[in-house]
Amino acid sequence: MKQQNIPYKIYLTEDQMPKKWYNLRADMKNKPAPLLNPATHEPMSFDDLRPVFCDELIRQELDDTTAYFDIPDDILSFYKMYRPSPLIRAYCLEEKLKTPAKIYYKFEGNNTSGSHKLNSAIAQAYYAKHQGLRGVTTETGAGQWGTALAMACAYLGLDCKVFMVKGSYEQKPFRREVMRTYGASVTPSPSEETQVGRDLLARFPGTTGSLGCAISEAVEAAASRDGYRYVLGSVLNQVMLHQSIIGLEAKTAMDLYGVKPDVIIGCAGGGSNLGGLIAPFMGQQLRGEAQYRFIAVEPASCPSLTRGVFAYDFCDTGMVCPLAKMYTLGAGFIPSPNHAGGLRYHGMSPTLSQLRADGLLEARSVIQTDVFEAAEQFARVEGILPAPESSHAIKAAMDEAIRCRETGEEETILFGLTGTGYFDMVAYEKFHNHQMSDYIPTDEELQKSFDQLPRI
Amino acid sequence: MKQQNIPYKIYLTEDQMPKKWYNLRADMKNKPAPLLNPATHEPMSFDDLRPVFCDELIRQELDDTTAYFDIPDDILSFYKMYRPSPLIRAYCLEEKLKTPAKIYYKFEGNNTSGSHKLNSAIAQAYYAKHQGLRGVTTETGAGQWGTALAMACAYLGLDCKVFMVKGSYEQKPFRREVMRTYGASVTPSPSEETQVGRDLLARFPGTTGSLGCAISEAVEAAASRDGYRYVLGSVLNQVMLHQSIIGLEAKTAMDLYGVKPDVIIGCAGGGSNLGGLIAPFMGQQLRGEAQYRFIAVEPASCPSLTRGVFAYDFCDTGMVCPLAKMYTLGAGFIPSPNHAGGLRYHGMSPTLSQLRADGLLEARSVIQTDVFEAAEQFARVEGILPAPESSHAIKAAMDEAIRCRETGEEETILFGLTGTGYFDMVAYEKFHNHQMSDYIPTDEELQKSFDQLPRI
Repeated sequence: MKQQNIPYKIYLTEDQMPKKWYNLRADMKNKPAPLLNPATHEPMSFDDLRPVFCDELIRQELDDTTAYFDIPDDILSFYKMYRPSPLIRAYCLEEKLKTPAKIYYKFEGNNTSGSHKLNSAIAQAYYAKHQGLRGVTTETGAGQWGTALAMACAYLGLDCKVFMVKGSYEQKPFRREVMRTYGASVTPSPSEETQVGRDLLARFPGTTGSLGCAISEAVEAAASRDGYRYVLGSVLNQVMLHQSIIGLEAKTAMDLYGVKPDVIIGCAGGGSNLGGLIAPFMGQQLRGEAQYRFIAVEPASCPSLTRGVFAYDFCDTGMVCPLAKMYTLGAGFIPSPNHAGGLRYHGMSPTLSQLRADGLLEARSVIQTDVFEAAEQFARVEGILPAPESSHAIKAAMDEAIRCRETGEEETILFGLTGTGYFDMVAYEKFHNHQMSDYIPTDEELQKSFDQLPRI
Repeated sequence: MKQQNIPYKIYLTEDQMPKKWYNLRADMKNKPAPLLNPATHEPMSFDDLRPVFCDELIRQELDDTTAYFDIPDDILSFYKMYRPSPLIRAYCLEEKLKTPAKIYYKFEGNNTSGSHKLNSAIAQAYYAKHQGLRGVTTETGAGQWGTALAMACAYLGLDCKVFMVKGSYEQKPFRREVMRTYGASVTPSPSEETQVGRDLLARFPGTTGSLGCAISEAVEAAASRDGYRYVLGSVLNQVMLHQSIIGLEAKTAMDLYGVKPDVIIGCAGGGSNLGGLIAPFMGQQLRGEAQYRFIAVEPASCPSLTRGVFAYDFCDTGMVCPLAKMYTLGAGFIPSPNHAGGLRYHGMSPTLSQLRADGLLEARSVIQTDVFEAAEQFARVEGILPAPESSHAIKAAMDEAIRCRETGEEETILFGLTGTGYFDMVAYEKFHNHQMSDYIPTDEELQKSFDQLPRI
């Protein structure tokens, strides 16, 4: 199809919106390695996972052969409240960069959670409700996932208990207040409410917490309450499945206008946005139908894909969760407190890790002040104030566009703009006041962390 | 046309977006009274206004006969970056309220300024740029207008100087930081930078400022700098003209689906959103083509339309601006510090004031805690966390929907959801912690303020 005149924003109609999620694993020759029981090192079975996760979500987690899952009607209705998200042609950024490249971004920030996290939150909350549960527990770092889950639970009338990394809880009172508006209870982690939390507080009284610790607390809280299950906002296969809505919408919109991306770029913390964005494109590539470049962008301060090892590791600090085979910095790794925003997780989605190991996914790391410079430049020309996380993808997309300017190539770049930075103004203020630094872990620090990996 | 099956959200295509603004005054039999020179009490001429406003904006301000103004191409391009805004069918709210009413809202919050203010900011910045000016000055209260203007100026490469009401400046550091991200300079008002500010600080050393004072400072700052003009985010006729984009889009979207509203509701501070939303509908009514109910909703703590007088008054505290005939509480009126968000202006758009005086516009006031209760209920079912200002309209729309439930009437309600509450979490926190009160000015207080009105 010949490329037509492209509007600034492409919105699919309700009829054009995807009715199924796409399960990339079905098309992968090398499947992601199974989760292992941390005690026996045997693959986790459906029954092993039942005390922690909702039944239907376990089925999705374990199924690596079914390519498409129907999206239930209630979730489709909820999606219609804030989706489709626009696919935006970055005409102004192209002009600013004087690049022959054509830049598109899929913008997931037009909802109150401020990010793509809502796509999986509503799915997980729905299956919990459907199973007759009373509530769910989870952790949140920067606060996007906790907010998304609170919104989904408020909509469905489900109780929502969020363990929020203490440092973030104290620095982001407004995120906490949004969750309260949606009726969630928010506890700073580590807390006195769980054994894991009490142990950690005894060992490190002044700690500001970590995502890995908050996960342990949320899992313990779910397992110890009747009618509760734990839900997670990234890393897991089920989350990649739900987030495929991002890529499916983006691909449908591009197909409508006969546009094919050359490069697809996403920021990567646990991998939920990147995995969702690339899913249908990567599927084509795996089936030999098309060729793309895929680029994962991560912070130099938490570089799991670029400097981590591909090995089985714990998903949490408390070592209560299953083991996952992934690129990891070690479950004990804690990024520098100077690092702003999310993308602080020590590991990476097993699906994306496998793709990376198979040479299908490029990865690069970027330093923090460069990211905020790109963010500010983007905000001024494209109007949207981006989240620090999303700005990692912006930085890489701008670098690719500048490369095109230098080579004269008219490539088409697609990147994921996962969310808005409205609750990250403390970080922007630090950037404006030149109080932001670019700490990068040393090889020695990483080696020390790798030495703690379980031997499997 | 028969009513079709309506999607959750209606987005116009770029082709369907309005190419002209509509000037409601052209269809008004009783025109809004002219601005008067505060010294001579003569109508302000084009030349009188030139030191303060941009030339083209003065032409728009004074023209009450031309019905349509072409929107310049550059503004249309900017509009395409964040518009069209969605017209949303509130299916979930309808279900929650068990009302036979059909509720629609025009959502203007999907942009980084967080409100409809950007519609006029880009227009005013464009005309300033077009005239070869170096920069503009303005005031901001809650911060939405200042942010919008900063965004527009960053896009066009224009200097932007914002006087921010000191109380708001201190309570909302993040709003200030967003403006800085867009390159604006932000000064707390009253400041030492202007004569008006210095005088006020001498008389009231501890004052947290007011919108009326910040206006005076911004006007003085513009008049005393080469290549600068003053711009204002509400009240003026030119702003109503630019904001007609809201109503024009809403009407086009409703016409596409054969929907006709019975009641049209908007919150009203200076009147820019309400004036813009109702413009094309009111035009029909004035031409005898259709009948609607129009309802302005204001806070009980700052009730210009419901308890003010219709008289000539100063637009600012410093009494440097022209006099406008409007519903006013007196230029010296300062709302209770407990009052959250915007809608704090002592006066009301002369256009809306005239419509009110002619019996064409209903007005009601609502108390603050009721507004926040409605806001929270709305957020939980519709997903969007609304701005406190917009929540005044939500409260009235919900009341109308409940009336329909009681009478069984299947009315169609349209309201303006002007923006998001992401920077208003301090107010939401007060509400959650039961620290919010409902101060309403006494008749004696208002009378004291009316006694200070100029005698014209």
